[in-house]
Amino acid sequence: MNMPIHPAPRGKLVAIGGAEDKDSETDILRQVLKFAPMPDPRVGVITTASSIPDEVFAVYRKVFERLGASEIMDIRIRERADATNAAMIDMIKQSDVIFISGGDQMRLTSIFGGSTALTAIRRRYEDGGVIAGTSAGAACQSTTMVYGGDAVDSLRKGAVRMTAGFGLIDGVIIDTHFLERGRFSRLMEVGATNPEYLGVGLGEDAAVLFDDDIIHAFGPGHVILVDSSGITGSNVFDLAEGEAVSVHNVTMHALVDGDAYSLSDRRVLKADERGTTILEKMNAYN
Amino acid sequence: MNMPIHPAPRGKLVAIGGAEDKDSETDILRQVLKFAPMPDPRVGVITTASSIPDEVFAVYRKVFERLGASEIMDIRIRERADATNAAMIDMIKQSDVIFISGGDQMRLTSIFGGSTALTAIRRRYEDGGVIAGTSAGAACQSTTMVYGGDAVDSLRKGAVRMTAGFGLIDGVIIDTHFLERGRFSRLMEVGATNPEYLGVGLGEDAAVLFDDDIIHAFGPGHVILVDSSGITGSNVFDLAEGEAVSVHNVTMHALVDGDAYSLSDRRVLKADERGTTILEKMNAYN
Repeated sequence: MNMPIHPAPRGKLVAIGGAEDKDSETDILRQVLKFAPMPDPRVGVITTASSIPDEVFAVYRKVFERLGASEIMDIRIRERADATNAAMIDMIKQSDVIFISGGDQMRLTSIFGGSTALTAIRRRYEDGGVIAGTSAGAACQSTTMVYGGDAVDSLRKGAVRMTAGFGLIDGVIIDTHFLERGRFSRLMEVGATNPEYLGVGLGEDAAVLFDDDIIHAFGPGHVILVDSSGITGSNVFDLAEGEAVSVHNVTMHALVDGDAYSLSDRRVLKADERGTTILEKMNAYN
Repeated sequence: MNMPIHPAPRGKLVAIGGAEDKDSETDILRQVLKFAPMPDPRVGVITTASSIPDEVFAVYRKVFERLGASEIMDIRIRERADATNAAMIDMIKQSDVIFISGGDQMRLTSIFGGSTALTAIRRRYEDGGVIAGTSAGAACQSTTMVYGGDAVDSLRKGAVRMTAGFGLIDGVIIDTHFLERGRFSRLMEVGATNPEYLGVGLGEDAAVLFDDDIIHAFGPGHVILVDSSGITGSNVFDLAEGEAVSVHNVTMHALVDGDAYSLSDRRVLKADERGTTILEKMNAYN
C-alpha cells in the first residue's frame, strides 16, 4: 500500500482579486464555470464573509444564471451552527462549483474553522469540484491567511495580521485588491517573516487557477507574484514591534492573462513551455 | 588636457519621499543641514512647486531656524521670468543648502527648464553645495522624471507619465510617497519600458543621499529600490495603449535607515562593506 496521507486534490482552485466584472464581459466568472467538467454546472454560493449576504447572493445568482448555471444554491451559513447543518452540507456536496464571495475573511475562518462544512468543501475539492473565491473568498484559501494590516503601515514589524486559513493550498499566501490598494509592502513583510511562502497578489478583475504545481493567470487585471525565497538579508528578527523592516533581493513578477508560473521551479514559464494552456484544454468541450 | 565633459558633482544630493517630520524629531531635515561642510549653513528654499508657496516657506523657515541655519532665503521663483532674475540667482549662489519643496513637479520643470536659475543650481551642486528636495522637489532631480499616473491605473501601457527632469542624477528614476500611495506598479511599468534605470521609491519620512555610486538610505521610513536590469520578459512593446503590462523577474529591496546600495554593482552593501558610513563621516565636525 502506498497511500499518500493527503491525496492530491483533483478539483480546480480559483482565486480572484475582488471587484470582478459581474455585468458586461464577465470574463473571469465565465471562465470559472468552464472549469467544471460539464456544461451548465450547479453553483453553490457562500456569502458568509459579507455583511449584506442577501444582496450579494442576488448579484451572483443573476450573473451565474446568465452564464448558464443549471442551478444556483444559496449556501446560507451565517454562524457556526449553520456550518454543521445537514441541508447546507448537502448543498456543498451537490455543487459542481462552490463560489465564495468577498467580505471579511475572518468571518469565514471563524465560522467555518473546524466545521463539517469546511470538511465538505475540502472533500468536494478532492473529488473534482471547482472551488472559487473572490477577495475574502480568495484570501481564505491558503493555509496561512492574511486578514489585516493597512498597506501604509506594513513593512513595520507586526503590521500585517495573519492567521490560519482554509488550507486548500499550501506554499502560497494570497492577497487581493493588490495593485488597487498598493499592498506590495504587505507581501514583502510576509516574505521577510518566512521566505518559503510565495506571495500571490491578485489585482481586481484578475484571477489565478492553481493547477497542481502551475499557477495560471487569467482575466483583464494583473497578478503580482512576490518570491522571497532568494532574499539575502532582512532585519526582521532584530526588531521591536512597529520598527521598519528591511528586506533585500525580493523577486517580483507581474503576470497577465495567459501567463503561467511553476511553483516548484519558482519561475515564469516561457510561451513555448506553456504549450496548449490548461485554460484552452479545459475549454475544449464547449 | 584630460577634462571630463561633465565634471563629477562634488556636492550632496538628497531626495526625500515627502511628509518629512518638520515638528518633533525632524531627523531628516537635521541630517540635510549636517551634509553642508560647515555648521549653521545658509539655506535657500524653493517653493515653486507649491500652490501655497508663502505658507510652505513659513513652515520651512521655522524648522530650519530651529535647526540652526544662519540664514534662510526665500528664493521666490513663481514664473519663468523669475528664473532669470539676478537677485534669485544670487540667492542660489549664496546658499550652502538649496531645499526644494513639494507640490507639482511639472511646475518645477516647466518654470526652471532651460533657465539660468537651473544652471545656477547645477553649478552650486558641482561646487560642493547640498541640493535637497522633498516630494516634487525629489522627483524632479533625475534626468527622466515621473510626473503622473495613478498607481491604480499603472502597469497599463502609457499610464505612467514621464518627462525630462532637472538632470542632477543619471541612471535612476525617483518616485515619492511610495509605500503610502502604493506606487510599486508605477516603477514596475517604468522598469519594463527601460530596464536600465533603477527605480528609487521613497516612502514618506524617508530619504536617500546620492553619493557618487552609493545610495545611502536614512530617516524613519522605507526606501524601495526597483531593479529591472535582470528582467527576463515583458509584453510592453506588443501592447496597445491601456493594455496590461507583464514583467518578469524584477528585483526589489526595502531599505531602512543605515542601509546602502551600489548603483554600479546593483546590490545592497553588507554591513561590513559600509564600514564607517558616509553619514557618520560627514557628521564628524559636530
